[in-house]
Amino acid sequence: MTEARPSRPVALTMGDPAGIGGDVTLMAWHRRDQDTPCFFVVDDPARLARLARRLGIAPAVREIESPEQAASVFDTALPVLPPRAGLDRMEQVVASIEVACGLVRDGRAAALVTNPIHKESLYDAGFRHKGHTEFLADLAGIEHAPVMMLACAELRVVPVTIHLSLAEAIGALDTEAIVHCGRLTARALAEDFAVARPRIVVAALNPHAGEGGHMGREEIDLIEPAVARLAAEGIDVRGPLAADTLFHERARAGYDAALCMYHDQALIPLKTVDFAHGVNITLGLPFVRTSPDHGVAFDIAGTGRADPSSLIAALGLADDMARRREAARAAVA
Amino acid sequence: MTEARPSRPVALTMGDPAGIGGDVTLMAWHRRDQDTPCFFVVDDPARLARLARRLGIAPAVREIESPEQAASVFDTALPVLPPRAGLDRMEQVVASIEVACGLVRDGRAAALVTNPIHKESLYDAGFRHKGHTEFLADLAGIEHAPVMMLACAELRVVPVTIHLSLAEAIGALDTEAIVHCGRLTARALAEDFAVARPRIVVAALNPHAGEGGHMGREEIDLIEPAVARLAAEGIDVRGPLAADTLFHERARAGYDAALCMYHDQALIPLKTVDFAHGVNITLGLPFVRTSPDHGVAFDIAGTGRADPSSLIAALGLADDMARRREAARAAVA
Repeated sequence: MTEARPSRPVALTMGDPAGIGGDVTLMAWHRRDQDTPCFFVVDDPARLARLARRLGIAPAVREIESPEQAASVFDTALPVLPPRAGLDRMEQVVASIEVACGLVRDGRAAALVTNPIHKESLYDAGFRHKGHTEFLADLAGIEHAPVMMLACAELRVVPVTIHLSLAEAIGALDTEAIVHCGRLTARALAEDFAVARPRIVVAALNPHAGEGGHMGREEIDLIEPAVARLAAEGIDVRGPLAADTLFHERARAGYDAALCMYHDQALIPLKTVDFAHGVNITLGLPFVRTSPDHGVAFDIAGTGRADPSSLIAALGLADDMARRREAARAAVA
Repeated sequence: MTEARPSRPVALTMGDPAGIGGDVTLMAWHRRDQDTPCFFVVDDPARLARLARRLGIAPAVREIESPEQAASVFDTALPVLPPRAGLDRMEQVVASIEVACGLVRDGRAAALVTNPIHKESLYDAGFRHKGHTEFLADLAGIEHAPVMMLACAELRVVPVTIHLSLAEAIGALDTEAIVHCGRLTARALAEDFAVARPRIVVAALNPHAGEGGHMGREEIDLIEPAVARLAAEGIDVRGPLAADTLFHERARAGYDAALCMYHDQALIPLKTVDFAHGVNITLGLPFVRTSPDHGVAFDIAGTGRADPSSLIAALGLADDMARRREAARAAVA
């Protein structure tokens, strides 16, 4: 379906230059096949060329001046758009995100894919955002909190709370947050995943879904009201359901995404089912953004031991989502 | 290896008579093959004969007077040992556990397998124990808390806290409980599972294992000291490890059992990996006890729709464990 594919390339950020972002970027380009969308990376071309030589990937890097040049370059070299000149390393990391995000917002790139950053290094260099996603929300000018979805071929999960200790996550759980996640999830399933009638399940917080209040009251006090509100909005939603029996193969066939109450409740089943190909998707931004679901992995950067599977999946999914979102919005318009 | 198999039968309790215990018991006998150990059930023979007729399982029930008769009956009928006479239904449920447990303790049965009970029904009939396992601990006369392991072919997990709300589980977590679980797990792996050098991993409570204290301090304050104590006792133990990356296929190859900090952290991966064949094992009793990892399922009792897979796995595993434990203790003696 080449004709349905957006002709615009996917924009990829460099991530932390001491991490594996460059490695997996070069490997993803090197292993490209007919399913790989055209993409370019916003990075220092000289740095990537050195890394390509170290990884034994043939002269493979070509500097471009605009995203429009990516398509003609991509078959023979990885298109690299330099971030603004005269920046130090950490400023480059931030500029890479700003430039890539700007090109996507301007419609000159189809979607944004981000390589992993290391927040502590950026904080030391004056970065003032809570994280990658919050920075993008700020760049996109949105008020509400973006929501994280993790997806592999077998399962999509949306954690309602994320980077909090487990005790804090329980405290932070509220009906409003569950409803917000449910709405964005239903919309993303319809627009970005082309699911005609999205079916959402909501995991319980407590074992056995709290056994009617005998093992915790969050199901009754917080989750059931959220499910009722989502259902009242016409969303096909069930829950709260006991989390332990929610993720086996037969159960997964009954829904399109599961809302989870805390980080590990979402990530344990996802990474158990498919460790290598999980993709992180940010819902609620005015553009498509995905990222690999691994971190900077400083210890193996530059060694060729990094696995580009998740980045390859993230690039392909971003392109698919952008194509579907465009089609969905064109159909409505 | 028929010669290594204990000649004593496995004793099975009836469970709640309104649940699926009778269904799965009859089906497990009906589907017996060369891997099925000889077993008998402590139940009312007339009740089981009626149920067998309803399920279309040919005249399949034979009353026995002692466990020693089970072996000669088993090939042609399910051996049924009646609990004490003159009891009402709920008293029968408790008597079935007492009788089966007594026969195992006396060495007249190889191991105990229990069908699911419904605590609320038993409480109404005057049952005063916190649960099935606590009742068995009391019958066995042990002081320390038994520990639950769940096992399937791909994974063994041991939840350190069990039937508590998630908030209560976090509060109940302590170093002593983790050490206790670790010791019993190492011993069970060696004696009951014939693992020459048991390797245990300990899951973190918080996402990303707490990121060095930035997302919760339980790893530093409670779990690390427990791991250090277990290691000092000569146990091959690693942790606390981020729970989300602990249960995929390659990770599972690196250990023999995972200690988990709460119910769903253990049960989500287990039931995701193998929904039907999980077996519940009680560690720390002076005899082998397993049970299917499902409940009474009142709604499908008597319909033939129950899946006996978990009970079949529980019977086979109980027999295997009893055989190995006997061999291990004989080797030491």
